[in-house]
Order: sequence, then structure tokens, then C-alpha cells
Amino acid sequence: MMGWNKAQAARHVRRAAGAALAKGKIVEARDTTRLLEAVIRPGDRVCLEGDNQKQADLLARALAAADVGKLHDLHMVQSGVVLPEHLDLFDKGIARKLDYAFSGPQSTRIAKMLFGGKIELGAVHTYLELFARYFVDLTPHVALIVAVSADRDGNLFTGPNTEDTPTVVEATAFHDGIVIAQVNEIVDKVPRVDIPGDRVDFIVKSDKPFYVEPLFTRDPGAITEAQILTAMMAIKGIYAPYGVKRLNHGIGFNTAAIELLLPTYAERLGLKGKIATRFALNPHPTLIPAIESGWVEQIHSFGGEVGMEDYIRARPDIFFTGIDGSLRSNRAICQTAGLYACDMFIGSTLQIDLLGNSSTVTTSRIAGFGGAPNMGCDPHGRRHPSDAWLLAGKEAAPDMPAPLRRGRKLVVQIVESFGDKNVPTFVEKLDALDLAEKLNLELAPIMVYADDVTHIVSEAGIANLLLCRTRDEREQAIRAVAGYTDVGRGRDKKMVQQLRERGAVRWPEDLGIDPLDADRSLLAARSVEDLVHWSGGLYAAPSRFRNW
Amino acid sequence: MMGWNKAQAARHVRRAAGAALAKGKIVEARDTTRLLEAVIRPGDRVCLEGDNQKQADLLARALAAADVGKLHDLHMVQSGVVLPEHLDLFDKGIARKLDYAFSGPQSTRIAKMLFGGKIELGAVHTYLELFARYFVDLTPHVALIVAVSADRDGNLFTGPNTEDTPTVVEATAFHDGIVIAQVNEIVDKVPRVDIPGDRVDFIVKSDKPFYVEPLFTRDPGAITEAQILTAMMAIKGIYAPYGVKRLNHGIGFNTAAIELLLPTYAERLGLKGKIATRFALNPHPTLIPAIESGWVEQIHSFGGEVGMEDYIRARPDIFFTGIDGSLRSNRAICQTAGLYACDMFIGSTLQIDLLGNSSTVTTSRIAGFGGAPNMGCDPHGRRHPSDAWLLAGKEAAPDMPAPLRRGRKLVVQIVESFGDKNVPTFVEKLDALDLAEKLNLELAPIMVYADDVTHIVSEAGIANLLLCRTRDEREQAIRAVAGYTDVGRGRDKKMVQQLRERGAVRWPEDLGIDPLDADRSLLAARSVEDLVHWSGGLYAAPSRFRNW
Repeated sequence: MMGWNKAQAARHVRRAAGAALAKGKIVEARDTTRLLEAVIRPGDRVCLEGDNQKQADLLARALAAADVGKLHDLHMVQSGVVLPEHLDLFDKGIARKLDYAFSGPQSTRIAKMLFGGKIELGAVHTYLELFARYFVDLTPHVALIVAVSADRDGNLFTGPNTEDTPTVVEATAFHDGIVIAQVNEIVDKVPRVDIPGDRVDFIVKSDKPFYVEPLFTRDPGAITEAQILTAMMAIKGIYAPYGVKRLNHGIGFNTAAIELLLPTYAERLGLKGKIATRFALNPHPTLIPAIESGWVEQIHSFGGEVGMEDYIRARPDIFFTGIDGSLRSNRAICQTAGLYACDMFIGSTLQIDLLGNSSTVTTSRIAGFGGAPNMGCDPHGRRHPSDAWLLAGKEAAPDMPAPLRRGRKLVVQIVESFGDKNVPTFVEKLDALDLAEKLNLELAPIMVYADDVTHIVSEAGIANLLLCRTRDEREQAIRAVAGYTDVGRGRDKKMVQQLRERGAVRWPEDLGIDPLDADRSLLAARSVEDLVHWSGGLYAAPSRFRNW
Repeated sequence: MMGWNKAQAARHVRRAAGAALAKGKIVEARDTTRLLEAVIRPGDRVCLEGDNQKQADLLARALAAADVGKLHDLHMVQSGVVLPEHLDLFDKGIARKLDYAFSGPQSTRIAKMLFGGKIELGAVHTYLELFARYFVDLTPHVALIVAVSADRDGNLFTGPNTEDTPTVVEATAFHDGIVIAQVNEIVDKVPRVDIPGDRVDFIVKSDKPFYVEPLFTRDPGAITEAQILTAMMAIKGIYAPYGVKRLNHGIGFNTAAIELLLPTYAERLGLKGKIATRFALNPHPTLIPAIESGWVEQIHSFGGEVGMEDYIRARPDIFFTGIDGSLRSNRAICQTAGLYACDMFIGSTLQIDLLGNSSTVTTSRIAGFGGAPNMGCDPHGRRHPSDAWLLAGKEAAPDMPAPLRRGRKLVVQIVESFGDKNVPTFVEKLDALDLAEKLNLELAPIMVYADDVTHIVSEAGIANLLLCRTRDEREQAIRAVAGYTDVGRGRDKKMVQQLRERGAVRWPEDLGIDPLDADRSLLAARSVEDLVHWSGGLYAAPSRFRNW
């Protein structure tokens, strides 16, 4: 048998070492660091659950407190690098190598540590890609996960933020790894079983509820008139002509504006039932007015959203919920839904170059992209036809015989020509390229690649890249919507005029939109308080968003 | 509350109607048709679990026996249309509409029924695509699934063929649908929990074990010398130069030959550890010699394979297994692994056209493609770099600046120029196009699209389409490996010679391979009996493959 069950044998030894500290599967919170030192081995691949939203914060603190003589050179393989402890591990030498997908709040520090050589970078992944590698070449030896409650058999209830947990556990538990869960409470019977207990080795009851970020809440009060204008253009110039029903929205204010214009502006255009009926997306509070107005038929979610719990529970026809009534999310599944069952992704970015490549990475911030690069791509290979997908394919390749012509997923970037602090969004060269040179990366951290983007929307207009036939046309179409940036001022007026005549560029007037009509009165909700009203008091906005 | 919990209310009514026939969750087999009539409503979307391999055959028979006055116009949404009963449903009018992915043994009858208008076709999907739609616009009202055993709480053990079950159940149970499972036995405690009981409404104990097909077993005795030659060329001309470590193999004899040449031919080329170490694939028995020779580090599987149970149990370092020791497969996850964590797909097809489009559909057989179109595509969007992926990208776009240049997944079609009954594989026009015209399909049933294919291997040579710069070059490269077919004889000798000089075409002599060396003695196993020997008697070959 020698050599065929090394992992199984190692698992027995690790489990026995942990069991010495446990009663059944339960370990006291104060013993957590000792548990980790007993179970983890130097050099292990460890997934310390850091999702887009929820964080295994107790386990993160406990691991960061480990004796570096006992635990060192770990290879962290996790979606999110979000908590300070996630990086403390590298500062202390407990961890050495990192494969990850997203690092919002830590993006500045992670950039410094990469420059300083403190972190050996594997790759910056998309969520789905990292999940895929969990089963092929980045399988965790130990998973440190987080749930709401556990019973004594280890059955876990995740609550609405199921997120990455089923995927992380599947990769670890079914390849003889060790699974340790922190939970808010230990109960006799969990409200529903999100993770079966026989996949869980140890449970630690945390002293306080795990950290979860309300990452998808956008205050309607902060939406600008420029963003409303881009939203009007997207609805009238893209959603309507393609008849986009199944889609994903990004996290920004432009798409929040679209959500809040559905029951007002889009309804007046007669689009109800014809666009935006089915979503793969988190439960955005700004979708409440559209849901309440009967616009939305179904939503599948990557994760939950703080404050939306009771509202979701009262709207089970719309959301995926468990027998306990609360949301069941699943990031791997929702990403797949976005890839193959959606006809459009629309989201924002920080920089767009003359070809249409875009990135949210700058030379001082390496945020990673999470799910956007999967949502924001045209998945190749065979797919079922839909009207939106076929029309986009026809625009891109009008001369190809129809039965051989694949459709195209609509990949839309919606921006303002100048972003925060009046920094231009449209640039000759992405900062991501400078970063690639500085860090000697084989691949620049592009978020959405030029050949996948179909439209760029700004307050200046819509560039339809599907209708551009040459590299020059593409560049001019992008310049045409780049407003008063240097890129915009560099446009060839004659060529832009030709592109407008062909519909490859559409300025507001071409769409019959008067920018002066882009008024905050169009928003179905103008404040978080309005959203609470729309929800009949079911939406419990987090305190940081409440000012009434 | 009106209007927001229709599905929940409907679920209560359906569940109560079913409960009248049940003791706890358990329903007697003889009452199955009555259960289905009580729980399902006309027009429902129903997933009758028909996977690539395992079949809910008892539930299929019971549904086909339903009273068409009570159950009619169902919309079947299921991976496989495999059993005669799957189509009897349409003949009888119980079902009307079909969305599916694969129909191997029923491909002739399904074609006839489509021509005859007996089936309203939604679309022919890939597995992953159909799974995605389960969460967006094809969510089942009722799932009829299959497992090995259940306990009285409804916890299910699937055994090695977990396959589609977790995904089907997740879509149905978390959107207020009803889940009914047939099981081989009811036990006090299941060996492991593949599906938590709170997602399962009713259980029926079947009178005999569910049907499962040994779909991935290829008898080494049937491998021809032409197939061995294509395998040698693939190893020396593709695996070696790209250094392909992470990959998926198709189901055909050509790839079985590759598996059997790893410990012999490839080992002599010094390639051990340098290629083919990690797979996303079913447990092919023809991989046993490579595994036993230490070639393979890890395999994640879509499903199981009949007869491989004990072997897998004894090789847990290689396969994903549960605490009970048996394989845990998962089709959705393994497809995702194939998409984003593999650098190559290599598989066979029936027809290839002059552009490189390929299909296994003919005008009389509509088999669907299952997973091949996902495996056989270059997933767009961002991905981590690997040597194989970067090299392929560089060949395709040598002039693009490296940091902006995406790599390419290797998508290899391996064929013989003449297939079964001496029908040419290379054709001017795919039968799939004729079929699209006949059935008035918006999209021809292409399996792998030309723009995703990177290489075509035949006994005549390798066409490297990455190195072709024009449509003409591509066509001539394909003609160059089309042997004595009409397509092959139509080649332009001068242009082919130029392509050979550039390496865009490589004939056996260009690779230093003498076709006379392609001998069955190169195969590590020459019979199923040899495979059993290699496995130390652990592989229990199904009786149809045993002749000793």
C-alpha cells in the first residue's frame, strides 16, 4: 500500500493531534492557535476562508498568532485577502506564497508587500478559476472556514452568506484534507444543513459573530446626474435594442442607477417584462424598487447582503432560499450562471485603453478582480441561442453564415470619462502594464480584455465595438465617448461622424436623450431611507448607511 | 404577502399530496406513479435525473406510466436522454418540451422525433450550460434523482457516481421545488452524506440497483495501429513541446492509446513528470498503467466508472474520495476544473470541415455533446499563466506585447482521416449544417468551433492552427493532415510544403516518427485482462469486457 494513501495517513495523524484538544469535534476558542499548530504542517496549502463578504476572522487571528517555529512557509490559497491578519501571516513568515482573487481593503498593503518581496505571488485569479484549481493543482491541505452555527456532529448552517464554503470544503474534505470551522454558535439542530457534518473535522465557537461586509450596498443619495445619464443611455441604447433579460450587474453607482431607473424611466419606455427580468447577482438593496414594482422574476446570488435578510425571506419567489427561509447563495454556481445563462455583464472600471482593455489595478493598488473577469467575458464554445446573444453575434460577423455563427455575450463597461478626483478613465496605456513591468509579471493584471468588450458607455455616448471593423475604427469609437479627456480630444472628427452614421457611436442626441433630463428625480429611491420604505420596512439598512 | 411566495405555497400543497402516500419520507415503489401524479403539475419543468452514466430508471418508468390526463406538457430539463422511457414521455404526451445535453443511445430516435415534431426542442446544451440555466431560467419544479442509499431523514449517499446530483438538488430544493430520490437501499446511517436530508422530500426504494453505464471503458484490444500512430504524434508533437501537465482526455480510442503509451513510449522519451500529471476526467481504466507507473499525481472526476471502485479506494492520493473511501465525483466542478485549471483538451470527433469546425452530429443521429464543447473551448477572460498556455498564446499572436497577450488553451482534435465504415472524417460541409436547415435551427449543432481548435492530429500528421495566419493557410493545413480523403487530395502541395517548413504542418517524418514503429507492442496493456493485472486485481472489469 506504500505510497498510495500518504494523504490519508497524514490526515489520521493530523486529526489525532487535533482531537487531543477537542471534545468530540468541538475545540475551545482559547485553544484555536494550538489546534492550528497541531493540525497544520509547514509548507501546507491552506485556505483561510476569506470570501468576497464573510471572513473567518477568529481563525485568521489564531493563525497569525501561531509560533513561526512551528508554522511557516504556508501557501495560502484563498479568494479574498481582506483582513489585516491575512497579510500579517506573510509579515511574520508564517505564510510565504499566495494565490488569491480579490483584496479590496488590503490592496495598497498587498502592493507594497509584493514590491518588497514579502509575498511570493502565485497568480491573481478569478474566483471561478481559483475554485477550479482547488481540484487540480491547488488542493488545500487544510481549510479554515466560517459558518453561522454548527451542531455537535459538525453539520453547518452558513446563513445567507454560503458563498465559497461548499466549494472550499468539497476540495479539502474529499482529498483527505482537514476542515476546521469557526461558528457563531453551537446548537442542537441547525436550521438547515449547508455543509454535512461528515466533511467537518473541528469546530470552534467564536466569541463574537464573524465579520461580514455590506459590499453591495450603494446609497442612492450618492448617485450623480452623470451616472444617471449613463444609466439612461445603457437602458435605451443597449438593454432595449438587444432585449437583454438575463444579466449580471457590477457593484458600482452607474449600475445602481440603472436598477433605480427600471421602475421609472425604463417603465415609461414600455420596457417592463422585456428587459432585466432575471439576474445572477448579490441581493443589491437598490434592486428593491424594481422587485417591488414587479420587474424582476428571479435572482441567484453569489453571496448575501447585510440587512437584506428579512426582505429576502419575505420574497422567496424571487430569491433562492432554504427550508429555514433564509437566502442560499453559492459563488461557484452563480459565477457559472453568469458565464452561461446570462446575456450581459455591465460593470464599471477605473481605466480603459485605446483598444478597450480595462483594469481596476493601479501601480499603488492591487485589488484583484474577483468575479468581474468571468462575468465580463464572452465564454467561448457552444451555447444555446437567445435573441440578445444572436443579435450581438450578427453585428460582429454579419457576413458569416448564420448557423455557423456563434452569438456574443454583451460585455459592457459603464464609466464616466473622468473618475474620482478628476482622473481620466480613458488612457493611452493602462497602469496595469507599468505594474506588470515593475513586478516582472508574465501577464498584466487586465480585468476585462479588449476582445471581450462589446460596448463602452460614458456620459458622452455609447461605443458599440461589435460594429467596428478595424483597429482604427475601434480606437476612434472609444475616443468618441472619452469626453474631454486627452484621449477624447484626440479623436478624428470625420471618422467619428462616420461611426455615428453607422451606429457604432451613439451620442445622447442620437438616442433621443437630452442630458438635461438626467435628473435625480428619475431615481425610484433617492436615499437609503427610500429603499427601506420601498421594502415595507423589511430592509434593515446597516447603521453606517442610516442618517434618519 | 400575496404574490411573493407562490412557489412556497405550491410546495406545501404538493408536499402534502405526496405525504399522503408516504411514511415519513418513504414511499413504496409500487406507489411511485401515484406519488408523481400527486406532486407534479401539468406544464412543470421536471429534471428526471439522466446523467452521463447513472440513471433514475425506476422514476423514469414510473413517470412514463403516468395518466396523461393528469400529467401532460411537462418541460423536461435534464442532462441525458438515455433511457427509452425518456422519449416514451414525449410519445405519450406526458412531456412536450425538452432542454438537454446528451443522448448517446437514443440519438437516432430523438432525431426522428424531432423531425416528426413530437418534441419541442429548447436547446442542445453543454452540461455546465444547462446547470447554469437551472439557476436562471430553467429551474426545475420537481427533481427526480437517484442515489445508492438513504437514511430515514433523507440523507443520501450517491456512491462514486455523484455526477450531477448536487447541482440538480441545489437548483430545485433552494427554489421551493420538490426532490424525490430513488435509492437502492434504505439504511440506518449512510456511509457519507452526499446530499443533506433536508433537501430531499421523498424517497423510493427501488426493486433493483439503478442503471449505470461503463461509458469510459475502452478495451485496449480494440486499439488500432493507426490510433497508436496518432497517439505517438500527439505525445511527441504536442504534449512534449508545450509541456502539458494539466489536461482532459476525451472518451475515444485515440486518447486511450495515449494513456497506454505514457509508461512506454513517453517514458522512453524522458517525459515522465513533465507531461500529463494532473487530469480532470473520469476514472478511465486505461489510465491504470500510467497511475501504477507513477505518472499521475491527481485526478478529479465528473463521474465514476463501473469496476473501478476498489481500485480507486486503494489509490486515495490520486482520486477524490469521501470518508467512506469511495470516489466523490462532481460533474459541475470537474467541468469547471476543465475550463480553468487545464491547459489542454484532446478528444475525437466524427467530422471536421475546412475551417476546423467539428461535430459528432449527423443527419440521422443527434447525440448532443455533453461536456466536450466546454472542455474543447478556449475560455475567454483573465486566467493564470502556465507555460503551455503562454506558449500557445505566443504562437497565435507573436506580435502582441507579452503582458497584454492572453495565452491559449490547447484544444486538440485527434482523429483518423477515415472513420468507421471508411467514411471520411474531413468534409467540405458538416452534416450538422444540413441538420440545422432541416430542423430550422438558429444554430448548427457544432461541437467544437473552428476558432477554439488549436491542433488537428491524424495518422497523416499534425496541423497547428495557431501558426496559420490566413484562412487559406488554415484550410491547407487541415487538408495536409486529411490523408487520402477528397479534402486531403485537394491540397496545394506547394503551400503545404511551406507550412511544413514553418511547423504549421508536421508529418510523421518531421517529428522523427516512423509509422512502422506504431505497433501494438507499445501499449502498456493490450487487453482488459492486462489492465486487471496492472491494477493488482483491484479493477473489476464489467463482464461484457471480460473474455478470460
